[in-house]
Amino acid sequence: MKKIAVVFSGCGHLDGSEITESVSLLIALHQAGADVHCFAPDLEVPAMNHVAKQPSNEKRNILTESARIARGQITALDKLVTKEFDAVVFPGGYGAAKNLSNWAEKGAKCEVHPEVQRVIKEFHAESKPIGALCIAPVLLARVLGDKKITVTVGENGETSAEIQKTGAIHEECPVDDYITDRESKIVTTPAYMYGDAKPNEVFQGIFGLAHEIVEWA
Amino acid sequence: MKKIAVVFSGCGHLDGSEITESVSLLIALHQAGADVHCFAPDLEVPAMNHVAKQPSNEKRNILTESARIARGQITALDKLVTKEFDAVVFPGGYGAAKNLSNWAEKGAKCEVHPEVQRVIKEFHAESKPIGALCIAPVLLARVLGDKKITVTVGENGETSAEIQKTGAIHEECPVDDYITDRESKIVTTPAYMYGDAKPNEVFQGIFGLAHEIVEWA
Repeated sequence: MKKIAVVFSGCGHLDGSEITESVSLLIALHQAGADVHCFAPDLEVPAMNHVAKQPSNEKRNILTESARIARGQITALDKLVTKEFDAVVFPGGYGAAKNLSNWAEKGAKCEVHPEVQRVIKEFHAESKPIGALCIAPVLLARVLGDKKITVTVGENGETSAEIQKTGAIHEECPVDDYITDRESKIVTTPAYMYGDAKPNEVFQGIFGLAHEIVEWA
Repeated sequence: MKKIAVVFSGCGHLDGSEITESVSLLIALHQAGADVHCFAPDLEVPAMNHVAKQPSNEKRNILTESARIARGQITALDKLVTKEFDAVVFPGGYGAAKNLSNWAEKGAKCEVHPEVQRVIKEFHAESKPIGALCIAPVLLARVLGDKKITVTVGENGETSAEIQKTGAIHEECPVDDYITDRESKIVTTPAYMYGDAKPNEVFQGIFGLAHEIVEWA
């Protein structure tokens, strides 16, 4: 049974992991027969009101909030031991661009959370598959861009142009599909980079990615 | 296109809607071709820390937290106009037993939130399908028990015994299946009433329920 690590960044698309993407990933990885373990950094970040789409003037802990998705079965990211896993996947949501990195503010020149950076580098060094959904491929571009990896964030536009500044290559992809970089063992799918996507379309793209990751792991 | 209302009770299984159940429902209803609209009561409730599984000594608003699952596309429950919808579905999670009712405290003698009660009574009166996942069938039992409705919360046990005190009938059901009461147009599936269920098993039961509801609506 393949052991897959999933790294969350909170619970909710405006200040954490996008929830439909996260759950789609958990369902699809289990459908593919994987043994799934959830992780998140133990980090306080500003929260957003998801009705008003404005800051809610409070801080929340990413690990504690991600536990809502993982039903409490979650571990601090600094405890993730790469050699115990066959692959790692990062769901999307602004949490990837605001909590796991400061891409939202600095783009291609962003800093990536040290533990996220470690995990990406270690899985890549051990030739283990890495998956990323929605905006999360920016983390891979920032850390591995000099390896000329290929990723997708959907259609060409501002974000893909910024990604290419890291050295990474961007390939367009519809919401219900995914892109595979065979050489670097990186699989990405755009999910809610298409803002008006339906949950079943997002699920379909992630379903494909999850099966590719598990098959390959 | 069938128009289906989904009623959330927060975001997280210990103080709101169970997240995997909620997203599974949204995916499956869209797969079945439905037009889905999300609702939740505008209500402050005590929050739980999902790592410690203890109260976190803060209050959160159900509508605002449910918006995390619904990506902000959500309406206060008192705005739900029954005649505009073909069916309604209630995901599970402790929110159903603590926020939409006080079943967790009072069992078969619980009070159900007035708007939840109204919605259940109206959909039933108009012979429109009502779905409920996990612990949420207790809401239907409390409001419609005198109609001898049949529901499931998984295996027979304490909860099913309490349900039968309302007049409702309990039928056992595995996690990946669902129970249909053809006369009352009620469809229920146990989901995380099986605490060690896998996300794909929960999805499978909800997938069946969603298709039954949409076909019937």
